Formats: sequence, structure tokens, C-alpha cells
Amino acid sequence: MTTRDRILAFLDRTAVRNTLLVVILINAVLLGMETSPAIMATAGPLVVALDSLCLAIFVAELAAKLFALRGQFFRSGWNIFDFVIVGISLIPGAQTLSVLRALRVLRLLRVISVAPTLRRVVEGFVNALPGMGSVILLMGMIFYIGSVLATNLFGTSFPDWFGDLGASAYTLFQVMTLESWSMGIVRPVMEIHPQAWLFFVPFILITTFAVVNLLVGLIVNSMQDAHNEESNARTDQYRDEVLARLKAIEERLQRNE
Amino acid sequence: MTTRDRILAFLDRTAVRNTLLVVILINAVLLGMETSPAIMATAGPLVVALDSLCLAIFVAELAAKLFALRGQFFRSGWNIFDFVIVGISLIPGAQTLSVLRALRVLRLLRVISVAPTLRRVVEGFVNALPGMGSVILLMGMIFYIGSVLATNLFGTSFPDWFGDLGASAYTLFQVMTLESWSMGIVRPVMEIHPQAWLFFVPFILITTFAVVNLLVGLIVNSMQDAHNEESNARTDQYRDEVLARLKAIEERLQRNE
Amino acid sequence: MTTRDRILAFLDRTAVRNTLLVVILINAVLLGMETSPAIMATAGPLVVALDSLCLAIFVAELAAKLFALRGQFFRSGWNIFDFVIVGISLIPGAQTLSVLRALRVLRLLRVISVAPTLRRVVEGFVNALPGMGSVILLMGMIFYIGSVLATNLFGTSFPDWFGDLGASAYTLFQVMTLESWSMGIVRPVMEIHPQAWLFFVPFILITTFAVVNLLVGLIVNSMQDAHNEESNARTDQYRDEVLARLKAIEERLQRNE
Amino acid sequence: MTTRDRILAFLDRTAVRNTLLVVILINAVLLGMETSPAIMATAGPLVVALDSLCLAIFVAELAAKLFALRGQFFRSGWNIFDFVIVGISLIPGAQTLSVLRALRVLRLLRVISVAPTLRRVVEGFVNALPGMGSVILLMGMIFYIGSVLATNLFGTSFPDWFGDLGASAYTLFQVMTLESWSMGIVRPVMEIHPQAWLFFVPFILITTFAVVNLLVGLIVNSMQDAHNEESNARTDQYRDEVLARLKAIEERLQRNE
Repeated sequence: MTTRDRILAFLDRTAVRNTLLVVILINAVLLGMETSPAIMATAGPLVVALDSLCLAIFVAELAAKLFALRGQFFRSGWNIFDFVIVGISLIPGAQTLSVLRALRVLRLLRVISVAPTLRRVVEGFVNALPGMGSVILLMGMIFYIGSVLATNLFGTSFPDWFGDLGASAYTLFQVMTLESWSMGIVRPVMEIHPQAWLFFVPFILITTFAVVNLLVGLIVNSMQDAHNEESNARTDQYRDEVLARLKAIEERLQRNE
Repeated sequence: MTTRDRILAFLDRTAVRNTLLVVILINAVLLGMETSPAIMATAGPLVVALDSLCLAIFVAELAAKLFALRGQFFRSGWNIFDFVIVGISLIPGAQTLSVLRALRVLRLLRVISVAPTLRRVVEGFVNALPGMGSVILLMGMIFYIGSVLATNLFGTSFPDWFGDLGASAYTLFQVMTLESWSMGIVRPVMEIHPQAWLFFVPFILITTFAVVNLLVGLIVNSMQDAHNEESNARTDQYRDEVLARLKAIEERLQRNE
Repeated sequence: MTTRDRILAFLDRTAVRNTLLVVILINAVLLGMETSPAIMATAGPLVVALDSLCLAIFVAELAAKLFALRGQFFRSGWNIFDFVIVGISLIPGAQTLSVLRALRVLRLLRVISVAPTLRRVVEGFVNALPGMGSVILLMGMIFYIGSVLATNLFGTSFPDWFGDLGASAYTLFQVMTLESWSMGIVRPVMEIHPQAWLFFVPFILITTFAVVNLLVGLIVNSMQDAHNEESNARTDQYRDEVLARLKAIEERLQRNE
Repeated sequence: MTTRDRILAFLDRTAVRNTLLVVILINAVLLGMETSPAIMATAGPLVVALDSLCLAIFVAELAAKLFALRGQFFRSGWNIFDFVIVGISLIPGAQTLSVLRALRVLRLLRVISVAPTLRRVVEGFVNALPGMGSVILLMGMIFYIGSVLATNLFGTSFPDWFGDLGASAYTLFQVMTLESWSMGIVRPVMEIHPQAWLFFVPFILITTFAVVNLLVGLIVNSMQDAHNEESNARTDQYRDEVLARLKAIEERLQRNE
């Protein structure tokens, strides 16, 4: 057993994993505390020091894993995930740029890669995506065509909402979620383009129908999986029982001949 | 049969349960009347007196049950439920503190623990929760990380919405329900932080996808249960029939040898 | 065959039913025309006369059915439905009271009782209701308790929204549909009662969870029905085949003995 | 092999199809570029020229297919679809009328008829429609009756929302999607017609229940299809196995006699 194997075995121990979970939870509390000016005024340096300690533990764990696995480290999606979300906190300048500073909190997502139950849930989500691939592609296309169309039709009258492709795509996303689509967007638009509903009502019907079909697909797939596992095991066991008895009868007949 | 057994048997009689249901319904009407100043002006004392009588009946029933079951009383979740919602009305000061006064109406929830159909529905709801455990945990985590992130990013510019963790969590809950998320929250935020949609649009996609997965899980589970009960009973009956016939054939063959 | 049987047979003929459908569609167009002042200014008397003719046909059909069936007429839910929606147009004063005048359009709902496909869809809807009974009861109770609670807590500060039980129930229905629940209702309420979210957020979670359970129940039931019909027919056919063969073997063995 | 057959075979080659897909994607980028005044100012003529080239390729492909298939061309729904969306760009005056100019982007929908996966998804959507026929018919009727009713009741007080049948239908569609239904529409209406909720709340309950039933129908149908294909294949294989063995036993018995 090489040093590298021993490191991997150590990192995989339940006690080590649970310690890591505790560190993540403590880090979560610390990062929550940092949002409160009152707490930072009284115990700021301590909170920051403990936060750095947590980060150091994460970095140490990742470095050990990286040393042990070398090139194979990047073969696992979860390792890349850990590498990126921990790496964000180490980007130089993270202390000055407020956005990078804020993104340090993503480090808490490590709880997903460490806790097996959460990991399975997320893997379930990710595995469901390919089955939804073609519908997502279709929706992307409808959004693109809708954005070009809306920019051309309403862009000059409503530059805030439909000024360019990005603005149109955002507004159409809002319309798809049905948020203020009529009172907020379509009624004002209809005051200048009275036929605008001819674009928006079909857009809503088509996109919600596509979303419903995504949902239906998800349900049917999960059901399929859940159903088959159990039902097939049952049917197989039953079949084996009947076939065994039939074989026994045949053998007895053969013997009697 | 001890006195205690006799008390339990008495409380369990259909007539006693139905009387209790009637008392709850009368109490519901009385508590509804108390919200109307017009009714209280003309018949206030009578309504209050009848309300106290209903409360007295609830307390007597619970006290009898508590006397009969002693320590075992608190083993049943429903008994604790009854104890808490009736207890709220007995807290001293309930007549002066308007919130405690208002919470007296929770006492009507006793209808759930008394009516068997409602009880079953609520038990069904509660039993569905553990299966949703890991997804709920995941959503809690996404909300926490999202709240810290939003507080750090938008807290100083929009203290009303993202001033502290609590305000951010509430606003993100509103965004998840899609209520005014764009016109009310994200568009104003984008006027100061133009890239804010990079946070909110993925947040909406992830949380609604998680909610959809909760729904799918619920459907698949209920279907599983419903399907298996019936289908398995059918298959088992069929198998027993075939196997009995096969056994008969084998025995006949054995006799013939 | 009595006169009454002959009337029933006549009314049941496909040609008569189709004529009635055409009358309903013509009536639909006429009632649509009556909403347009421009059309009424030029062809008002003609439209009103034709509308009265349609009504006369409906009344004649119903009267014939009522004569033919007598007391049994009111045993069918659909007959009562027809009687009520046609009857509204005959209430004296319907020409002066604008609400009664407007309700005449409900007469078009006759298309449901006449067209068999629509009839089946509505019967499907109505048949689904009993299965949802206990959840609907539970929601009714949650709404009542919520209304009393909200009236007591927020009634004095927000009389428009929570002034009495009716206003509170309406506002809570709005909150359940998630319409402007936060920006429109809860945020203003929280400015006076900062803890109001403790009431509204659980209310939203509980009611939407109950609605989701209604949906899940509906899906599971329909699936059950659809699945069993087909799958059982298949399994039964298979079982009969296997059992017939087994019987044949046994008989052959018996003959051989 | 005639020239026409050769043309069809050529158009059906994978390489040709993929080239067409690339042309569509390039056209998509070009049409996106045309929405940006900055890009059009620097490279306008080039973008327009390339766009015309893409259009020419589409027209050439369609013309070749039309020549090869002649009358049979219009038997396929997809061909008609291609003909219409490409034809829009060729309508004279398309360069001057801004709406026709904007509709040129619909040409990108050709990606659906060319990419087999998207084609199947859309065919799946279209095939699901007939099964939803009667519920859609019912909803159309409810919308028509609701519009007439709302126009008669609220038309004079709120001409913007309920002034004529079209305005009412649009407003009721908005109410059905639950967008601002209460704060935006029903509360203002109730200030003049306090009983207006008697119309809107049942309208919401009925239409959302109908939509839910559409969804349930979709799920049950997809499940049915998915389930039967797999499960039946399994059961059939099992049955064949058992029946073959039973036949063998019977034959053996026959030989023994």
C-alpha cells in the first residue's frame, strides 16, 4: 500500500468525512456572521481567522486528494466541482473585488460532494437532464427566435425591455414565468402595437406547453425506473418458480418413459 | 376494568366523538362571530361565555385522557398536538396580548385529530415528508447560500430586501414563488447591478427544478403504493392458482409411478 | 308506445340533437353580437328577435321532456342543470336587472348537456371530486381558521384586506394563488406587524402542498383506472390460456391412469 | 432512377442535411446580428448579403423538393410548414413592412423540420393535441361564455379590460394565468361591483381545474404508452416460455399413451 493509497483511504474514512461536514457547517455559520456588521464590529478578526482556518482545511483536503490521484483527479466531475468552488476563494484580489469576495460562500456547496444523500439527489437531477435534452434545445431555439422577433418588433418603442437580444431574452423569460406578463409588459406594449398579443399569447401557450412536457417526461421516466425495478424482480421470481416446477414435471415424465 | 380503562372507552365512543365534533363546529362559529364588532356589541357576553364553555369541554376531555393515560399520553403525536393547541388558550395573559388571543383559534384544528378522515389525510401528508427529506435539505442549503450571497452582493444597495440574512431569505422565497420577481425585485436591482440576472435566473431555474422533483417524487411514491397493493394482490392470487395446479399434476404423476 | 315515449324517442334522435347544437351555436353568436353597441344600433331588433326564438326552442324542448318524464325529469342531474340555466332567462324582471340579463348567457352551457363528448369530460370532472373530498374539507378548514386568525391579527390595521371574515378569505385565496402575495400584501403588512411572515409563509407552504396533493391524487386515480382496465384484461387472458392447458394435461393424466 | 428520384436521394443524404443545419445556424447568427445597430453600421451590407445567400439556399432546396415531388409535396405537413415559413421572406414588400421584415426570422424554425430529434419532439406535442381536444373545446366555450358575461357585467365600467369580447377574452386569459388577477383586476372591479368575486373566483377554480385535467391526461397517456411497450414485451416473452414448456409436456404425455 503506497502513501497515495493510504492518503485516499484516510480521506475516505467516515470519521474524516464527518469532520469535514462539521467544518463546512462551522464555515456556514461563520460566513453567515460576516454578513452582520454588528457581529463583525465586536468579533470581526476572530470570525475572519476561523474562516481562513476552514478554508485552509478545505485546501489541504483537496491538495492531498490531488497529490494522491494526480491526473485521475480531474476525471471525476465532483472533484472538478470541489476544485472550482474552493479555488474561487484563492483567486488573488478576492479580498478587494466585492463579487469575488461574495462568491467565497459557494465553498459551502462542498456539503453536496461530501454528504452522500445530497450527492445522490444532485446526481439524480443531473441524470434527468439528458432525457430533457431535445425539449431544452427546442425551448432555447424558441427563445432565440422569439428574442430576435421581439427586438425587431418592439425594440425601438421599448428599449428597456426589448432593446437588444439580451434584454428581449430576459423579458421573454419573465413572460414565460407569467410574472407581470400582462399588466407589466403586454398591456403597455399593446398601447403602441395593438396586435402584440398575437406574439405573446402563442409564446406563453407554446413555452408553458413545452415546460409541461418536460414535467410529464420527468414523471414518466422516474415512474418507469421505480416501477420496473420492483415489478420485474417480482415477475422474475414468479417465473422462476413456475418454470422450475414445469421442469420437474418433465423430468419425472422422462424418467417414467 | 379500572376507572382509567372506563374513561378511555367512554372517550372513544362514537357518540362522544361526534359530540366533540359538534362542540368544535359551534366553537368555530363562535370564534367567527367574535371577529364581527356588530355581533359583539349586541351579544358579546353570551358569545364569550359559550366560547369559554367550549374551551372548558376541550380541557375536560384532555384532562380525562391525561389522567387515564398518564405518561403514555405524550407518546402519541396527536395527543401532543391537542395539548399544545388547547394549551395556547390557557396561557395566562392570553386575554391581554392580542397575538395570544388570536392564536386561540388554532384550537379549531382539533377537528383534525377528532375526525378520522381528516386525520388520515394529514397523516398521509406527514408520512410523505421523510421521502422528501434530502431534497428539502438541499433546498434549505441553496436558500442559505443564496441568502449569504445576496446579502453580500445587494445588501448595501437594497437594505429593505437584502439587508440581512432574514430579509434575503424572505426575498428569495418570494422570488422562488415567482411573485413580482422581475418587475418588483430583479429589474430594480439590475439598474444598479446590471449582472444581477446571473444570480437570479439560475436561482429560479434550480429551485423550481427542485420543487418539480419533489412533486415528481410524490407522484411516483403514491403511484407505487397504489399500484403495488392492487396489482400484487392480483398477481399473487394468479400465481397461487397456477402453482396449486402444477402441484396436483406432480402428485398425480408420483402416484402413477 | 305512448305519446310520451314517442316524444322521448323524438328528442333523442341524432338529427334533433344536432339541430339543437346548431341552435345553441347560433344563439352563442347572437349573444356575442348583443355585446357590440355598433351591431345593436343597426340590427338590434332582429338580433333580439332571433335570440327570443332560440330561447323559445330551448323552452319547448325542456317542456316536452318535462311533460314526457314528469317526476322522473328531476332525477337526472343534467335535466336539473338544463332547467336552471334555461330558467334564469325566464325570471320576470330579467329585462330590467342587468345581472339577470347578463346571466342569460349561461344558457349556452346547454352545449355541455347536448354534446356527448363535453358531457363526458364534465362527468369526469365531477366524478373526480368525491375522491378529493377530504383534502377539500381540510383546505376549507385551513381557510376558515386562517381567516379568523388574519382578521383578529391584521383586521384593524388593514380593513380593506382583512376587515372581516369574507375579506380575509378572499385575500388568503389571493395569497394561495401566489398573486402579489409579497409585494402587494405581506410586505405592506410587515411594515406594521414585522412577524407577519410567520403566518403567511407557513400558510403558503401548507396550502400549496395540499393543492399538490390534490393533483397527485388525481393523477394516481386516473392512472389506476387507465392501467387496470388494459393490464388486467391482458393478464386475465394469459391466465386463462395457461390454466386451460394445465387442465388439459391433468385430464390426460387422469385418462392414462 | 429518374432525375427526380436522384434529387430526392441527394436532399436526403446526411451530408446535405447537416450542411442545411449549418446554413440555418449561420442564418440564426446573421439575423441576430441584424438586431444590433452597432454591427449593422460597420458590416451591414455584408450581413444582408450573407442573409440573402442563406435565403437563396433555402429557396433552392425547397424548389428542388417541390420539383421532385410535385403534387405530393403538399401531402406532408412538414413540407407545408417549410413552404410557409420560407415563403414569408419572399412576400413582395417584405423589405418595407416592418412586421413582415421581422417575421423573416421564423425561417429559423426550419431547424425543426431538418433536425430529426426536434422533429420528433414537435410531432409528440402535436400528437398529444387530439387527446386534449374535448377539454380544449370545453375551455374555449367557458372562455366564450365568460367573455360575453364579463363584457355585459363590467364592460361599461371598465372599457379597457372588458370593453368588447376580444378585450374580455384577453383579460380572462390573464386571470387564468393568475397574473395580477386580484390586485390588478378583481380588486379594482370589486370597488364598483362588490360581488364581482362571485364571477372571478369560480372562473379561476374551473379553468385551473380544467388545465390540471389536461396535465393529468397528458401524464396518464404518456405513461400508458411507455409502460405498455416495455411491460407487454416482457410479459409476452414470459408467456411464450411457459406455454412452450406446457406444450412439450402435453406432447410427451401423448407419446406415452
